[in-house]
Amino acid sequence: MAEVVDKKVKVTVLVNGNILTMDKEMRVFQNNGAMVVLGDKIAAIGKTEEILRAYKSEADAIVDLSSKWVLPGMTNTHVHTSQQLARGIADDVDLLTWLHGRIWPYESNMTEEESYWSTLLCGIELIHSGVTCFAEAGGQHVSAMARAVEELGIRACLTRSTMDCGEGLPPTWASETTESCLQTQEELFEKFNGSAEGRIRVWFGLRQILNATDSLLLSTKAAADKHKTGIHMHVAEIPFENEWVTKTREVDHGTVTHLENIGVLGENLLAAHSVWVSSSEVKMMAKRDVKVSHCPAAAMRMLGFAPIVEMQEAGICVSLGTDGAPSNNRMSLVDEMYLASLINKGRQAYEKGMTDPTALPVETILQMATINGAKAVLWESEIGSLEVGKKADFVILNLDLWTMVPLLDPIANIVNCMRTENVESVMCNGVWIMKEREILTVDEGMVCHMAQQASTNLLKRANIVLPRRMNLVQ
Amino acid sequence: MAEVVDKKVKVTVLVNGNILTMDKEMRVFQNNGAMVVLGDKIAAIGKTEEILRAYKSEADAIVDLSSKWVLPGMTNTHVHTSQQLARGIADDVDLLTWLHGRIWPYESNMTEEESYWSTLLCGIELIHSGVTCFAEAGGQHVSAMARAVEELGIRACLTRSTMDCGEGLPPTWASETTESCLQTQEELFEKFNGSAEGRIRVWFGLRQILNATDSLLLSTKAAADKHKTGIHMHVAEIPFENEWVTKTREVDHGTVTHLENIGVLGENLLAAHSVWVSSSEVKMMAKRDVKVSHCPAAAMRMLGFAPIVEMQEAGICVSLGTDGAPSNNRMSLVDEMYLASLINKGRQAYEKGMTDPTALPVETILQMATINGAKAVLWESEIGSLEVGKKADFVILNLDLWTMVPLLDPIANIVNCMRTENVESVMCNGVWIMKEREILTVDEGMVCHMAQQASTNLLKRANIVLPRRMNLVQ
Repeated sequence: MAEVVDKKVKVTVLVNGNILTMDKEMRVFQNNGAMVVLGDKIAAIGKTEEILRAYKSEADAIVDLSSKWVLPGMTNTHVHTSQQLARGIADDVDLLTWLHGRIWPYESNMTEEESYWSTLLCGIELIHSGVTCFAEAGGQHVSAMARAVEELGIRACLTRSTMDCGEGLPPTWASETTESCLQTQEELFEKFNGSAEGRIRVWFGLRQILNATDSLLLSTKAAADKHKTGIHMHVAEIPFENEWVTKTREVDHGTVTHLENIGVLGENLLAAHSVWVSSSEVKMMAKRDVKVSHCPAAAMRMLGFAPIVEMQEAGICVSLGTDGAPSNNRMSLVDEMYLASLINKGRQAYEKGMTDPTALPVETILQMATINGAKAVLWESEIGSLEVGKKADFVILNLDLWTMVPLLDPIANIVNCMRTENVESVMCNGVWIMKEREILTVDEGMVCHMAQQASTNLLKRANIVLPRRMNLVQ
Repeated sequence: MAEVVDKKVKVTVLVNGNILTMDKEMRVFQNNGAMVVLGDKIAAIGKTEEILRAYKSEADAIVDLSSKWVLPGMTNTHVHTSQQLARGIADDVDLLTWLHGRIWPYESNMTEEESYWSTLLCGIELIHSGVTCFAEAGGQHVSAMARAVEELGIRACLTRSTMDCGEGLPPTWASETTESCLQTQEELFEKFNGSAEGRIRVWFGLRQILNATDSLLLSTKAAADKHKTGIHMHVAEIPFENEWVTKTREVDHGTVTHLENIGVLGENLLAAHSVWVSSSEVKMMAKRDVKVSHCPAAAMRMLGFAPIVEMQEAGICVSLGTDGAPSNNRMSLVDEMYLASLINKGRQAYEKGMTDPTALPVETILQMATINGAKAVLWESEIGSLEVGKKADFVILNLDLWTMVPLLDPIANIVNCMRTENVESVMCNGVWIMKEREILTVDEGMVCHMAQQASTNLLKRANIVLPRRMNLVQ
């Protein structure tokens, strides 16, 4: 990738590339693809010869993509950016220890500044894995996240972790009322929605049904509808959740059924995980156009296997998420594509007595990571595919490495073989935020250093002590 | 990692590192670890101060490992190196198409030269993922593999793919008799066992029970016992295999039961996959000290979920394998550790109604990739842990990257977060084969180029045509 002209860039013309548009016709330009970026938008897309004829004279920079591949920037639809400093604090422990012994003490002790470093660190991993947009699953400090996102140069739907009830909550959280939950979020919406040149949107959050009264569920839905924004909620994560809902809300199955009954299911609900849903609940979700964030790694490790193939068949928009660092450890959508392929083929071993190696083909998975991700965050009019008029959010891949050779079925290799080391450059909103694997917006080394310190301090303050796994020689 | 002295290296002293010995006491030297390499062996291991006092004067090179981690070279116990050129030729297809439409035509058309490039390409990926020893699952051209392994500088147990019966075999294979199978392998053993400074060992192969008469099973066992070497066999891969064995061999379960009945189960049998084994078969395998190669990715994608936790509990030596490129796509033991953690926690969702996030803790998985791998390939007296007198086979990891920060539980991060980009340098048999992520023994770019060409030619000759996945703009 060599820039021939290098002055203050207004019109960037990319030529001679392989372009996966992910548009409705799933068009691919192989070898001869070209794209024009004008400001923050895609102004043209087509064959190199035609594009050069039309744009060469006004190009401020011409980027040669020979043998490179271009993909729309991916959307990670479920990630706890403020949990990045908690990577490794809850590995191999049971769910109760995970929540009460590690995550709640960690989150409730986190300062605004620590949250900032956490989101920066997470953002670095997101960019390296080809992500240009993410949906925050809910943290304590939206202001800190917004500051980090502004600097990182990526796009985000930020959400405050919101709970108005629940057993055993840390004292600082237990005092929240339904009204205070809503008011805080209204203020955050006013302050940050549309900020960072429009890269930041603010959503409403519902941590999970065990921490939400019906009053909170309903007022959240009303507020999100009023502001034409989304709701991010953990849904049907574990069997206990459904049992509890069945008992306390007097429904015949679980969370999804209850949300349908009270009118919270809707096209602006992003339901993370959605593992323990019945076939009739899949139908409800499809009917209401609920969006699903499938998090393969977290599902395997913590929750169970969601009926993703059935959701796809029912027409639900399924996208991909990484979840947070203490539920997965790798915040890489590149790995998550590979896992989505594996887990959903394997799951059939239990459904049908044998795996189904044809389940969820790679082109479907690539849609989940790109255009479905954009739909899931209600942003598909501007991102998720490479089309004229959409934002210039894209990723340049170098597939000529030992990780991918031979390149016989490129789409399959991108989903099944690609590693973060193949992700070479990233543009978001018309601005290069990574080039040749170096992030241009923040200092990686400095962030890693500060994040390590912040994490160590936070663990001390939260009194979280990890057991030693091996025999340290003193 | 800076070498202070740089002359013809005989004595290399590594200092100030973090050393995971993986020895019986699971000793870890943190920050102050040192190791002495004398020729091809580890001559000393201890604290930096003590080691420097004893060895500084005779050191030819001193390597500063500050903040780096050292791990024994890992062993990939099931990999088809000659399938590397077939990456992407059989994604998202059913098992019958996979075998008869893609893999058999590919393998039966492969030349010796193509096999050589395939093993070289695979070897590059193995080294980048911290592997210094592999067990070949069985290919057509052991001579080509041996040539590649000799050049790569790694260690291998090579095996010829062996079949003396079976439905629908390609013509060139159908002519093999039990006797010719044995004779060819005896010749290969004579020619290559102990070659490449002792880095190559030759094993006996059994492709799978559907391609083996009882006579072949028994004579293979006798030959391996006579030569004190191992047998590499695919075992209990799919339910059909067990059904077929139950019918044709008149046993009450499947392959494992039949192998037990005729006396083939033994400590020199490396049983790959072993997915569909009953609890009584787990006991048989434990009693006979059979070694298992667990291949998490291939299991999820193609075969099903092996009872790995039960095997561990029964005392079976379980190791890790990647399987071949058309069954997995990534030939990375680094990824396989992560997957082993995820899949075996998730599998409990079906066994117990809920995942078990405590299943298979990371220290167990690290043992599977190192010392258990060495045991599985019958080489634990020389490799698999960092101990005085063992071969100098080790990997240097850089954990100070965004992929791993924060480093709070290093063992957990190595298993759950590490990417191949963290694998910095590799020594095998006392020789540096990779330094600063550059392979020193072969030319990566040239191999990738030649492998891409060889693969394209082979596919043409084998008449394998892949369907197009998207809409190519002409």
